Amino acid sequence: MNKNPYKKLAAVFDNYFAPLVNELPQHPKNLYQPVTYFLGLDAKRIRPLLALIVADFFDAKITKALPAAAAVELFHNFSLIHDDIMDNAPLRRGKQTVHEKWNSNIAILSGDVLLVKAYQEFAKCKKETSIQLQSVFSETAIGLCEGQQLDMDFETRNNVSIDEYIEMIRLKTAVLLGCSMQMGAICAKASKENAALFYKAGEKLGIAFQLTDDYLDVFGVAEKVGKQTGGDIIANKKTWLLLKALETSNTKQKKELKNWLTKKQFNPKEKVAAVKDIFVSLKLNSSLQNQIDSYYHQAIKLLKTSSASNKKINVFAQFAESLMKRSK
Amino acid sequence: MNKNPYKKLAAVFDNYFAPLVNELPQHPKNLYQPVTYFLGLDAKRIRPLLALIVADFFDAKITKALPAAAAVELFHNFSLIHDDIMDNAPLRRGKQTVHEKWNSNIAILSGDVLLVKAYQEFAKCKKETSIQLQSVFSETAIGLCEGQQLDMDFETRNNVSIDEYIEMIRLKTAVLLGCSMQMGAICAKASKENAALFYKAGEKLGIAFQLTDDYLDVFGVAEKVGKQTGGDIIANKKTWLLLKALETSNTKQKKELKNWLTKKQFNPKEKVAAVKDIFVSLKLNSSLQNQIDSYYHQAIKLLKTSSASNKKINVFAQFAESLMKRSK
Repeated sequence: MNKNPYKKLAAVFDNYFAPLVNELPQHPKNLYQPVTYFLGLDAKRIRPLLALIVADFFDAKITKALPAAAAVELFHNFSLIHDDIMDNAPLRRGKQTVHEKWNSNIAILSGDVLLVKAYQEFAKCKKETSIQLQSVFSETAIGLCEGQQLDMDFETRNNVSIDEYIEMIRLKTAVLLGCSMQMGAICAKASKENAALFYKAGEKLGIAFQLTDDYLDVFGVAEKVGKQTGGDIIANKKTWLLLKALETSNTKQKKELKNWLTKKQFNPKEKVAAVKDIFVSLKLNSSLQNQIDSYYHQAIKLLKTSSASNKKINVFAQFAESLMKRSK
Repeated sequence: MNKNPYKKLAAVFDNYFAPLVNELPQHPKNLYQPVTYFLGLDAKRIRPLLALIVADFFDAKITKALPAAAAVELFHNFSLIHDDIMDNAPLRRGKQTVHEKWNSNIAILSGDVLLVKAYQEFAKCKKETSIQLQSVFSETAIGLCEGQQLDMDFETRNNVSIDEYIEMIRLKTAVLLGCSMQMGAICAKASKENAALFYKAGEKLGIAFQLTDDYLDVFGVAEKVGKQTGGDIIANKKTWLLLKALETSNTKQKKELKNWLTKKQFNPKEKVAAVKDIFVSLKLNSSLQNQIDSYYHQAIKLLKTSSASNKKINVFAQFAESLMKRSK
């Protein structure tokens, strides 16, 4: 299989997006320099690609979906800049975050500008399409804010259920993938039913992707994932694995787990190994893999009920799988 | 003259806006509680009122301008919440700011949601109108971000000119008034020329209003302004008065002024009195009053070249003047 069957689509997007970034004003420098810096970081551009892929499913002219694709990428960058402030993250895509390189105030404002810029893209679509796109887009944007708030709430809660966790990642991560796919369908003038179906499929895929991140953080191969594994364990992050372990462990395991969660002084490698051992003894690696597979297959099944060609769906299914298999 | 000839319009807006606020979701509580709190603070709602007033100039059905009016008010609240974080402001409208009552992260997210909510209002307008409104709105929103950045930049600059200051307040404050008025005209299906003219007039009025704030902070009567005068002087805020004083003072005055600007320990009353004396000896009270009058008259002159009835413009001119005269 061609490893990336969408190289051409990605190039079409880059050709559209690069001038957008280059043509940003120069002044005030402290506003546009951070924006340009952040948009220039090496990024996968998965979300705009999803929009273009779906437009192509319906044999639409790709150019028609470019503004929506750019809107979703601008929005994604807005949310990353703001999330990075809230999560106190020093790095993004291997480089300094905006609030680290400049300061939080500048990061707030840079994010704000990107959100407005995202909306401005819709003015480039036909009126009818623009209105439909914005309806999905705004709904999704609000979902992301809610998801980020839930994520922050979880930090100080000790009773987060798996269902609540899935709902959080659905809002924080998955709905934007759903939105990207639905917008691609809308730009291609797919039927309302088809468009809605792509939203659902994107949502399922998004959950599969996020759960894959949870999986790889513990069970991935460091060199392939591109970062040291175990970061979530060290930070006591409430991922699917930790929540499920707290739910299903026996008294002894739970005691050990809670011990690691509360310890202030520890050897990171030792903590990662010990917690990973508990996950494995509970067979959470395979349970999580099953969850991921289930969401993935639900997504592909949904796509196959659409009116898009099965051949194209199959190419996409392989591509989506390869995104998840990248580092196992 | 009736002190507020627009009581009815204000009530129509409140009747539209209150349910919008009341119907916000309850969950996640840490997202929507701050939003509801902030929107519930006692506010003048000048911007939505401007939109409705202009719609009424053209005898349009006021209901047609309500979504745009709500959008501008939601946007205004978004920008206040974010500006308050950046300015480290403890109070807004006499109550705790969102970042003070909750925290900065919650304030960032509450603002973000309000910006999206603002855009959602446009979906309630006719397609053609919606597109036109959003074009002005997004352009204005970006202007506000630029204005806020300039304002922050000014804090650490020592060579801000009066022209730069006017440009900053134009962006930070005035364009949103221009946008409100233009949106009212667009909703009333006024001609493009008329709509653009209302933007310009609103901008001029906005500059007059902001300069009035600068004036009142020093020369207003504390009881009427509703806050202790001299706050800008104590904080070394680069207002029109300070910038003009630095520009026009003689060597001795400049030395005294700079002395006050750099002093870390001082008696606030003494500082306010001394700096005010310099302003008065430079006749800046009357120079600033002339500036304010000039912007105000430019605005009214522009309005009178529109196709709206002169009678209605006159009522509005008196109302706008009363807003500025409130506390002299």
